[in-house]
Amino acid sequence: MVRDQVRFGLIGTGRIGQVHAASIVADPDATLSWVADPYLAGAESVAARYGGTATGSPERLLDSAEVDAVLVASPTPTHVTLIEACIDAGLPVLCEKPIDLDIVRVDALRPKVAASSVPVALGFNQRFDPAFAETRTRVAVGEIGELEHLSITSRDPGPPPADYIATSGGIFRDMTIHDFDMARFFLGEIVEVSATGARLFDEGAREHGDYDTVAIVLRAASGAIATITNSRHSAIGYDQRLEALGAEGLLLVANAPSSLVSVSTSAAVEAKRPYLDFFLERYAEAYVRELAEFIKLARGEESTSPTFEDGRAALIIADAAQRSAEEGRVIRLTE
Amino acid sequence: MVRDQVRFGLIGTGRIGQVHAASIVADPDATLSWVADPYLAGAESVAARYGGTATGSPERLLDSAEVDAVLVASPTPTHVTLIEACIDAGLPVLCEKPIDLDIVRVDALRPKVAASSVPVALGFNQRFDPAFAETRTRVAVGEIGELEHLSITSRDPGPPPADYIATSGGIFRDMTIHDFDMARFFLGEIVEVSATGARLFDEGAREHGDYDTVAIVLRAASGAIATITNSRHSAIGYDQRLEALGAEGLLLVANAPSSLVSVSTSAAVEAKRPYLDFFLERYAEAYVRELAEFIKLARGEESTSPTFEDGRAALIIADAAQRSAEEGRVIRLTE
Amino acid sequence: MVRDQVRFGLIGTGRIGQVHAASIVADPDATLSWVADPYLAGAESVAARYGGTATGSPERLLDSAEVDAVLVASPTPTHVTLIEACIDAGLPVLCEKPIDLDIVRVDALRPKVAASSVPVALGFNQRFDPAFAETRTRVAVGEIGELEHLSITSRDPGPPPADYIATSGGIFRDMTIHDFDMARFFLGEIVEVSATGARLFDEGAREHGDYDTVAIVLRAASGAIATITNSRHSAIGYDQRLEALGAEGLLLVANAPSSLVSVSTSAAVEAKRPYLDFFLERYAEAYVRELAEFIKLARGEESTSPTFEDGRAALIIADAAQRSAEEGRVIRLTE
Amino acid sequence: MVRDQVRFGLIGTGRIGQVHAASIVADPDATLSWVADPYLAGAESVAARYGGTATGSPERLLDSAEVDAVLVASPTPTHVTLIEACIDAGLPVLCEKPIDLDIVRVDALRPKVAASSVPVALGFNQRFDPAFAETRTRVAVGEIGELEHLSITSRDPGPPPADYIATSGGIFRDMTIHDFDMARFFLGEIVEVSATGARLFDEGAREHGDYDTVAIVLRAASGAIATITNSRHSAIGYDQRLEALGAEGLLLVANAPSSLVSVSTSAAVEAKRPYLDFFLERYAEAYVRELAEFIKLARGEESTSPTFEDGRAALIIADAAQRSAEEGRVIRLTE
Repeated sequence: MVRDQVRFGLIGTGRIGQVHAASIVADPDATLSWVADPYLAGAESVAARYGGTATGSPERLLDSAEVDAVLVASPTPTHVTLIEACIDAGLPVLCEKPIDLDIVRVDALRPKVAASSVPVALGFNQRFDPAFAETRTRVAVGEIGELEHLSITSRDPGPPPADYIATSGGIFRDMTIHDFDMARFFLGEIVEVSATGARLFDEGAREHGDYDTVAIVLRAASGAIATITNSRHSAIGYDQRLEALGAEGLLLVANAPSSLVSVSTSAAVEAKRPYLDFFLERYAEAYVRELAEFIKLARGEESTSPTFEDGRAALIIADAAQRSAEEGRVIRLTE
Repeated sequence: MVRDQVRFGLIGTGRIGQVHAASIVADPDATLSWVADPYLAGAESVAARYGGTATGSPERLLDSAEVDAVLVASPTPTHVTLIEACIDAGLPVLCEKPIDLDIVRVDALRPKVAASSVPVALGFNQRFDPAFAETRTRVAVGEIGELEHLSITSRDPGPPPADYIATSGGIFRDMTIHDFDMARFFLGEIVEVSATGARLFDEGAREHGDYDTVAIVLRAASGAIATITNSRHSAIGYDQRLEALGAEGLLLVANAPSSLVSVSTSAAVEAKRPYLDFFLERYAEAYVRELAEFIKLARGEESTSPTFEDGRAALIIADAAQRSAEEGRVIRLTE
Repeated sequence: MVRDQVRFGLIGTGRIGQVHAASIVADPDATLSWVADPYLAGAESVAARYGGTATGSPERLLDSAEVDAVLVASPTPTHVTLIEACIDAGLPVLCEKPIDLDIVRVDALRPKVAASSVPVALGFNQRFDPAFAETRTRVAVGEIGELEHLSITSRDPGPPPADYIATSGGIFRDMTIHDFDMARFFLGEIVEVSATGARLFDEGAREHGDYDTVAIVLRAASGAIATITNSRHSAIGYDQRLEALGAEGLLLVANAPSSLVSVSTSAAVEAKRPYLDFFLERYAEAYVRELAEFIKLARGEESTSPTFEDGRAALIIADAAQRSAEEGRVIRLTE
Repeated sequence: MVRDQVRFGLIGTGRIGQVHAASIVADPDATLSWVADPYLAGAESVAARYGGTATGSPERLLDSAEVDAVLVASPTPTHVTLIEACIDAGLPVLCEKPIDLDIVRVDALRPKVAASSVPVALGFNQRFDPAFAETRTRVAVGEIGELEHLSITSRDPGPPPADYIATSGGIFRDMTIHDFDMARFFLGEIVEVSATGARLFDEGAREHGDYDTVAIVLRAASGAIATITNSRHSAIGYDQRLEALGAEGLLLVANAPSSLVSVSTSAAVEAKRPYLDFFLERYAEAYVRELAEFIKLARGEESTSPTFEDGRAALIIADAAQRSAEEGRVIRLTE
């Protein structure tokens, strides 16, 4: 009883689109059917490597009748329109985060998503990281008792180009949004946001009024507290840690070692190599699992894929963080 | 060329007074000369064990002419009066933190301290913890570049009695004050305080309007950010960690293992015993070094003992944290 | 300038044959062309999953003219004959270890291998484990000075069936042989072998006069010493560690964690999950790299694939270990 | 109900004698009454610092009638005579290891020790190391099931002077003897010894026919196996590790960190400072506990102090190791 493979249409062939293309062909339940990118050479290159028909037009992909599900990895400003088009085409869609940088556009799309039976999933891939997912499960089964404090550290190896900063929506909407979603993943509804931002080293951040270092405190409806710290650089490599403190214990996700080898000399002992460089390496397995979960969703099976509402909720927290940092006060999300 | 020992007068013979008595007799440069406690049996018990003359009257101790320096380990409300008396008696004094729970009383004492040449030191013993002190030195010599983020985790094994909470001044003035001082130790002047408090598990905190779990974000004049998280309980044992993130690296102070042994079985690997139970064990060495440094101060030598101004500055931050948590806004310390 | 893929003939489709089949199809430079197993259903199953033509006859595979290189993963007693047939067919061959359990048969084959230009590689996959390979490179570049002591710990999760023990050639030839090769990989020529064996828990070992626990000390021509400890069971999971001690430092390969998560409670702190279960998981990457290196060899490029001589040398050490354990004396390999 | 302090006579005031003097005065149950050393200035210096009457004559100390127990920390060749004199004087004695380098002299003393009721304890201080002692207790209560393999690593920071080597009795009797005792502590009776020695770096060892690097395999009467590796130097600091492998788990004693701080940079992560330098630091607590246990013995209470028989048994293993290394064969201790 072999099941048909899900035929994917991939829209967007930049770095993250290529990751998804590789995941699609590696998943025995999926095949890459069409690849669209207005930058046609990009689409052709991905199609040549991973299979599928290349096109410069997302519309052609959606109209091809050879696609069962769509993966949107195009620039953020196109997400709302493409999600809408997928819904119209009746095609389940996995869209990279964020839905949009503007909550007004997100809210405008919201009723259509809610009214439709077409599944819309958001690409919060970190939920599928084996270590984070394991930790959340262990919290959920009560291994450490009632959750009291969640601490997330996320630091990128180095700041993006100033150009990127300019259109990123700011560090809260661009980078911390993963951590806001992770906080929701562990704690559910967030009711208060208090954010502090600093400009310490990145010229691009300074130029565009963004921060390069932020610390955020969230309060959940449960009463529990989360702290998040982000930096746009990290000398030690990609720094991705999480601690969940419960009444009866502490679960800790360490950084991913890049080797099992340590060295001891007269200068220092037990020294290891710097951590895995960046998200493509650190979250390689997460992308694979994210796709597998979306395939279940696309097939109408039970699935834990993050939803449009998850994407919207994280953006609302990011907006609140931005206001909090600017106004120097706690933002209550129910106000 | 043997130097005379410093003859100590110890005021207060509770748990912390006894720690200091032991440190005094263990230090070859010090001797315990007088011990005062209105609860005379306490003074007599300490004198019997560690030497010195017992009295129920601190005044008699100060007037004895057999004391070169005073260690104040009595209840907080007595500190201001005793510091004043030490200054009047011309006796260098090491006073346990906090100076007082009321900044008005501290400020009233301030001119006298400033005008006097009698050294007044504050008992921020954690500055003398070998690991924290080493880390600060390594930061100071530039091992990790410019300091950008300091993260302090401090969780007590279990909440104090509700009675204690009632007169403690609240978690910020009682517990976090150590971390505020540590933040100043690493970062210098603090200019902004943003605090969030929760009541999650402790009936005493609830009853007295205090918090049992807090998260604080500080901004230093340098621009760097500090995050502090406290809890009044910790299932894993006394949780005392610190991370200093610089532009070029990360220094991390781990919890103190209670044993070099780890065990691996089919259930779990590399499991260690819970951490050292509480501050007397964790900071045993810090108390010893704190005293040694104060002895230098008492002798007129160069010393790094925390000062009255350090005690006042930490209290100001604690007051600001209290207001921040209550009002839901950032408190600027220069306002 | 695309290069032709190397067309592989796979002989043997048991557990390890299937691992190689997966590696072959995953390597862009290789394709699976023929699959042979006297147990035809096995060959057909592998061919159905990974491609290629199935046959019950290794001879047909060798005569097919559709094979550029052969991977021998059949039972040990067939190795010598198959290597010989590959040489006759002019086909580069990667043969699983050991060449044979009988050094007489190995020596009989030796002149033919030496006289032929057809590459013969041995499947000492652990040389290609990223951690071991990294360690050896770091030793070679002098990071820890002159190598003085190598310590290898290798323990299987549980003992094999008694049937397997019966035909395995004994623990030294079956299990320790990997460690003998690893010792040669780091230390070069071995000149003395001293082995101790015990029967502590495994009925199969007892029944067949084998050991379940062994400790071996080797002396290298360089003067350096290696210690190896093996056990046929390990409650903590697959235990695979290595330490290289040099005059100036120590390189240590830790066990592979199965998760980045640790847990701390009032019972124990920093506890992790048991290690990866067994060699297929632990050495997954090693199999991939082993194949890639053999492909270079098959193409006539420079390659570090272990050779027939490596396979023979490890067997000689294993034989010596067997004698040493039985006779209670050091065996000198030059005697 | 205060108990009388045990009045100690200390014979020998070198490095280790001074350690014991400090332990004696620090123990509330002991006092230092007499100090003897033919090098009178040494005795006087220790007496000046720690109290007691100094003498150049051990006989005067024994005859003083002011001594309840004796601590022998003089050179090895004097041990037998001094133990004998203590027995004659009816004074419990704690003698530093080894009893003597010559088993003939030890055996000559043996009947007298056996016939006397005067307690004779041997200074195998490592049994009292908190980590080793804890591990042994956890093994004894069955936490890891039946003990199958014990692995001991012991490496000194640097080789002793060639002069020391000349009279040391060789590495097995001088250094490994601690590990032989530790093996007996965990495994009980040892029945086979197989030792391998190398001369890799130390001119003194080469000159005097000693080894600087050794590996030993022991078999216990229980069937379990122990491996010991020693080196006369260690670039990483004093290397003292132990692993106890049981049927159900592994207990591991790690090296003692010299600080809780680790550093991560772009060059390496989680690097710690080198380990505690040498035995006085690493085993400081062990010396204290060793003395406390001997005080119990001297008072006629139940005690776990190692005995004369323990000292003799370790020497017999050391002798066997020497023969094994020289003759290249297993030495059976029952032969």
